[in-house]
Amino acid sequence: MAIWLEQASADFETRFAAFLTTKREVSEDVNAVVRTIIDDVRVRGDAALAEYSARFDGIDFSTTAMAVTAAEIDAAVDAVDPKVIEALELAARRIEKHHRRQMPKDDMYEDDLGVGLGSRWTAIEAVGLYVPGGTASYPSSVLMNALPARVAGVPRIVMVVPAKAGEINPAVLAAARIAGVEEIYRIGGAQAVAALAYGTETIAPVAKIVGPGNAYVAAAKRQVFGTVGIDMIAGPSEVLVIADGNNDPDWLAADLLAQAEHDVGAQSILITDDAGFGRAVEAAVERQLKVLSRSGTAAASWRDFGAVIHVADLEAAVPLANRIAAEHLELAVDDPDALMAGIRNAGAIFVGRHTPEVIGDYVGGSNHVLPTARSARFSSGLGVLDYVKRTSILRLGPEQLRALGPAAITLANSEGLDAHARSVAIRLNLEG
Amino acid sequence: MAIWLEQASADFETRFAAFLTTKREVSEDVNAVVRTIIDDVRVRGDAALAEYSARFDGIDFSTTAMAVTAAEIDAAVDAVDPKVIEALELAARRIEKHHRRQMPKDDMYEDDLGVGLGSRWTAIEAVGLYVPGGTASYPSSVLMNALPARVAGVPRIVMVVPAKAGEINPAVLAAARIAGVEEIYRIGGAQAVAALAYGTETIAPVAKIVGPGNAYVAAAKRQVFGTVGIDMIAGPSEVLVIADGNNDPDWLAADLLAQAEHDVGAQSILITDDAGFGRAVEAAVERQLKVLSRSGTAAASWRDFGAVIHVADLEAAVPLANRIAAEHLELAVDDPDALMAGIRNAGAIFVGRHTPEVIGDYVGGSNHVLPTARSARFSSGLGVLDYVKRTSILRLGPEQLRALGPAAITLANSEGLDAHARSVAIRLNLEG
Repeated sequence: MAIWLEQASADFETRFAAFLTTKREVSEDVNAVVRTIIDDVRVRGDAALAEYSARFDGIDFSTTAMAVTAAEIDAAVDAVDPKVIEALELAARRIEKHHRRQMPKDDMYEDDLGVGLGSRWTAIEAVGLYVPGGTASYPSSVLMNALPARVAGVPRIVMVVPAKAGEINPAVLAAARIAGVEEIYRIGGAQAVAALAYGTETIAPVAKIVGPGNAYVAAAKRQVFGTVGIDMIAGPSEVLVIADGNNDPDWLAADLLAQAEHDVGAQSILITDDAGFGRAVEAAVERQLKVLSRSGTAAASWRDFGAVIHVADLEAAVPLANRIAAEHLELAVDDPDALMAGIRNAGAIFVGRHTPEVIGDYVGGSNHVLPTARSARFSSGLGVLDYVKRTSILRLGPEQLRALGPAAITLANSEGLDAHARSVAIRLNLEG
Repeated sequence: MAIWLEQASADFETRFAAFLTTKREVSEDVNAVVRTIIDDVRVRGDAALAEYSARFDGIDFSTTAMAVTAAEIDAAVDAVDPKVIEALELAARRIEKHHRRQMPKDDMYEDDLGVGLGSRWTAIEAVGLYVPGGTASYPSSVLMNALPARVAGVPRIVMVVPAKAGEINPAVLAAARIAGVEEIYRIGGAQAVAALAYGTETIAPVAKIVGPGNAYVAAAKRQVFGTVGIDMIAGPSEVLVIADGNNDPDWLAADLLAQAEHDVGAQSILITDDAGFGRAVEAAVERQLKVLSRSGTAAASWRDFGAVIHVADLEAAVPLANRIAAEHLELAVDDPDALMAGIRNAGAIFVGRHTPEVIGDYVGGSNHVLPTARSARFSSGLGVLDYVKRTSILRLGPEQLRALGPAAITLANSEGLDAHARSVAIRLNLEG
């Protein structure tokens, strides 16, 4: 049973503040192990990669190739249920179409002094996509990570996926094919991150690494950050549902459980202005838990981190939602737009009773890689902007330099940087 | 004397690759000390802040207020040379105007199925700006960090600056006034970062921390990342100048030294197709070094990390420039546009012989906070996008859910997530 928080209670603020800061992850300190693996792969390349893959994944690169061949991808596509392929293709079309709208435009212009200014966007040259093995090996995540890179124009997208005894989930390879990813290696863990960052004899290095992974992968990404770019380090998933009493409790219980089944650290929160409805949702959650295949995970998540918050009216939900800053926010109310206007912190908003968050996980078109753990206060979901970078451009002629140079000299001198001042003065035949 | 690399030499690739990976910073391991300070400020708030400020900055908060008053800022403005104020105001106007063009637009639309999709941008609610004390306390950096936040619409911008015995550089306070920053605390170091991230009795927490600092500040930013957002961790500055033989060697020597005077770890590189010109620039650097106030720093930087690279023709400079991925790139050639077309990795490009990089440091209008240490391969300079975040929006009605739901159910089931499947199926009266 999740906790129940009553906004009208005297201790609400204390309890809500404590709820907000509850840690939902055990942080394992694997930094030292990861440091050793990275250094080793950096120095010994393929040989180290082979040793770690043998030890951790039980795969022998003297008999199985590290690179996945086009023929293997063909075979994987054939092995996947055509209905799944069709659904992945629908998802891919929608994701690609939506993300095309995110492509930033260059902006080159001259100001009133005749100074040329500009922002020019270029795609990152090479991106590595980490895909976890085992049960967390989701084809939908391959689409969500790879397609924005494709849209951005990244010329080289490399996928790594650990293959226990050589096996890779065929749906993951099919998703890679649909997303246009052709360079795939069966490696995983910190050793795969090291190989992507520093390169080996077989694998050329990339400039950025994205994608989810376990504690070792996360630590490795943090350690190679700077040598390469990385995406956010995602925590357990969350959903916040704001609902009035005019919903079917079963619908929203299903949404809360869809989040909870991800991980014991996932979090599902309901805010409602109708206490009776809140109780009905709680009851529906208990009923539905009985029939889920991942009911152990979902029950633990709901028990340890779930919450129902009862507020006097729906407007009171808005400031709470901004403090929670949820990865996913559902607005299951009559007038969602009225509430949405006040929301500033949320990874994604699902508007109205007919937009379950799950649509966004797969086929909505928007990205399902979103900021967790309250980081929607300062960061955005994955998108095309994560695969491009901006170069700023400045162009002066002699006339513009005469106009702006003296102020630059004044500021450089005031900061005690006389070589700065000289670099302008020398062109104007002035004293620095 | 800087090193000389001859592209025509047999060992060029080896030497260039080694040059690219040369470390220019001593990495101090201050993590444990910083961890203690952060934990202490988190638990004891103002009391801890006062103790660390007394110890490290020699300031007594029982006699000097932590917050800087409006009257103190007024007094600082009066104390600064009016010519400097005027130059700061010119810089601020130009920075603000340029950054306004970076403001992203919301994008809300309906697709052909009638699905509502959107990207909505909101400003981060509160941002902390770290300003170093002492000689690295640059008013220009206050403008560069604060103005994009203002343009983004950040409602609360907090500045922290360590004040040795209570003193703050008046030009820094004047720049804060010009940038519209009114909430200023005389604190610094890891304790200031902790106060911004977690809050104290006096200081409300922020959602993101930006600005340069020493090893302790950098380590503290890394440690609080996740609780708050942070900007990039900047390394020593760099310039790459691509020049033909038709330049005044003294101009480009001055540009190389303007970078070198920043830090012994700064790096200045000249690529030229004219060996005689390269030698002339080297000679000019030696001459100019004699008259600089920071000649010790500049000479060490040039000796340890400077380079002249001689190439057969200017086109050969482009792939080298992309590998160097310099923070600042000057194109001092007849046809800079021809070269610029091929450049993909650079923080900022300064086009033509009359655009010294120093203009971009102060009054060009573009931002001077740019990616260092080859990170222009995957990241951008500071801008408005660093102070906003995107919420994605999805809106389906019953009809759209009927159209997309079955594919979502198929994918959820294929990933073994049956609560996901149920959350859609229950709304469509289907089996999950």
